[in-house]
Amino acid sequence: MIVVKVGGGASINLDGIAGDLAHLDEPAVVVHGANAFRDDLSRRLAIPKRTLTSESGVESVFTDRDALDVLTMAYAGLVNKRFVSLCQQKGVNAIGLTGLDGALVRGRRNRGIRVRENGVRRLVHDLSGKPAAVNGELLRLLVDAGYTLLLTAPILDEQGQAISTENDDVVALLQRTLEPELVVELIEAPGLLDDPKDESSVRKALGRDELERRESTASGRMRRKLKALLKMLDAGCRRIVIADGRGPHPLRAALASEGTVVS
Amino acid sequence: MIVVKVGGGASINLDGIAGDLAHLDEPAVVVHGANAFRDDLSRRLAIPKRTLTSESGVESVFTDRDALDVLTMAYAGLVNKRFVSLCQQKGVNAIGLTGLDGALVRGRRNRGIRVRENGVRRLVHDLSGKPAAVNGELLRLLVDAGYTLLLTAPILDEQGQAISTENDDVVALLQRTLEPELVVELIEAPGLLDDPKDESSVRKALGRDELERRESTASGRMRRKLKALLKMLDAGCRRIVIADGRGPHPLRAALASEGTVVS
Repeated sequence: MIVVKVGGGASINLDGIAGDLAHLDEPAVVVHGANAFRDDLSRRLAIPKRTLTSESGVESVFTDRDALDVLTMAYAGLVNKRFVSLCQQKGVNAIGLTGLDGALVRGRRNRGIRVRENGVRRLVHDLSGKPAAVNGELLRLLVDAGYTLLLTAPILDEQGQAISTENDDVVALLQRTLEPELVVELIEAPGLLDDPKDESSVRKALGRDELERRESTASGRMRRKLKALLKMLDAGCRRIVIADGRGPHPLRAALASEGTVVS
Repeated sequence: MIVVKVGGGASINLDGIAGDLAHLDEPAVVVHGANAFRDDLSRRLAIPKRTLTSESGVESVFTDRDALDVLTMAYAGLVNKRFVSLCQQKGVNAIGLTGLDGALVRGRRNRGIRVRENGVRRLVHDLSGKPAAVNGELLRLLVDAGYTLLLTAPILDEQGQAISTENDDVVALLQRTLEPELVVELIEAPGLLDDPKDESSVRKALGRDELERRESTASGRMRRKLKALLKMLDAGCRRIVIADGRGPHPLRAALASEGTVVS
């Protein structure tokens, strides 16, 4: 079994990934984003995306009810079903599910994000949270029956309400539940870069110490991503490949260790 | 097992239906629409809905790529996931799926709709079709595991492309595959009306002969609906209840035979 995280950027080659899934020798559970399509839909519906930066410096999207609807339409509607259709066209019998379906991913609603606006501290509540438990029984039922799973946001909170979450956290949770041999992350870059502006500066291999050092100096989304990688290593994950999702065969290239190998 | 068709009108009480599903003694497979939400989204995205009337008088929505995207966002995204969330809030472990997922509903792409525009006959091609086969194995796998299925458009064509279809036809196909004891259809009226403008003119019971007579004089969507009902009776369905989807307990009322009983 492998777990594959597919970024939600506009240049991610879903068609190529679907083709690569058709040639996989083992079952795959895929978690995908759709942020570029969400942002585009927000703009077209004139529902502007709001981002918040917490006091501790972590940036996140503020999810009110309108934003949740837009997220659901982009992630669970447009992109998930396009991806399923691309898979079906390649002979991959894919099923697209959100964390809501069959209570696949249950989370804890955020108790509020502590922000400082114009010098004033306040607690902001939204429809977001952190994944806490996976319905491993449902995952295994479908994987054992030969289906390839394409998972996406939203997830369920404690009351059955849909909430947004970070896919990095969902992947880390899946890793602990399914214990795959390999986790692949397909992003809009050829791997983790030493210089974010220079795509030729790919770090080929990365150990725990270096990851920890980078995490302590990173900020925003990159910091959250590095935290999630550390969490997976701590949970016993032996190999994570971070590779380019934009090429003709993103998954095949990642399996050939093109990109950054974290171990 | 019962099969429930839920109309896609804005006044359908999904919350009430979710609550009724929680008190059902037998498994349910639900097929729902979302046309009111689709039309609203079309308007907000300034992608006007195009309808065509075939030479034989059947009206249908013309589905180009933009219309398919809007349909997918409204049906598979917004409404399906809201409905799943409402079910989860009532303790119903629902899974929302389209016909694409696990090739649940495969169809045949329409070869073109013959229309007459400004006196000229032409063949119009779009992304629509008729359902032809259901993945009964996947349905049973999930139903046997205790999940309540909420199905919606789109479905798959022969090449794995997403296409739109009529839910009436999907329900008729499910009826033949699953052979439920009962089919319930929840609509925005108290049943089939003798006078479409008078909600008190509900026809309490309807036999095959009367259904056939009505079908021969109906037009547009009503004709399509009556055709689908006839098809179900021909396939051995013994009882169909057409009931009000707007009340506090739409499914409970339908099970008490409030509405039109077709047998």
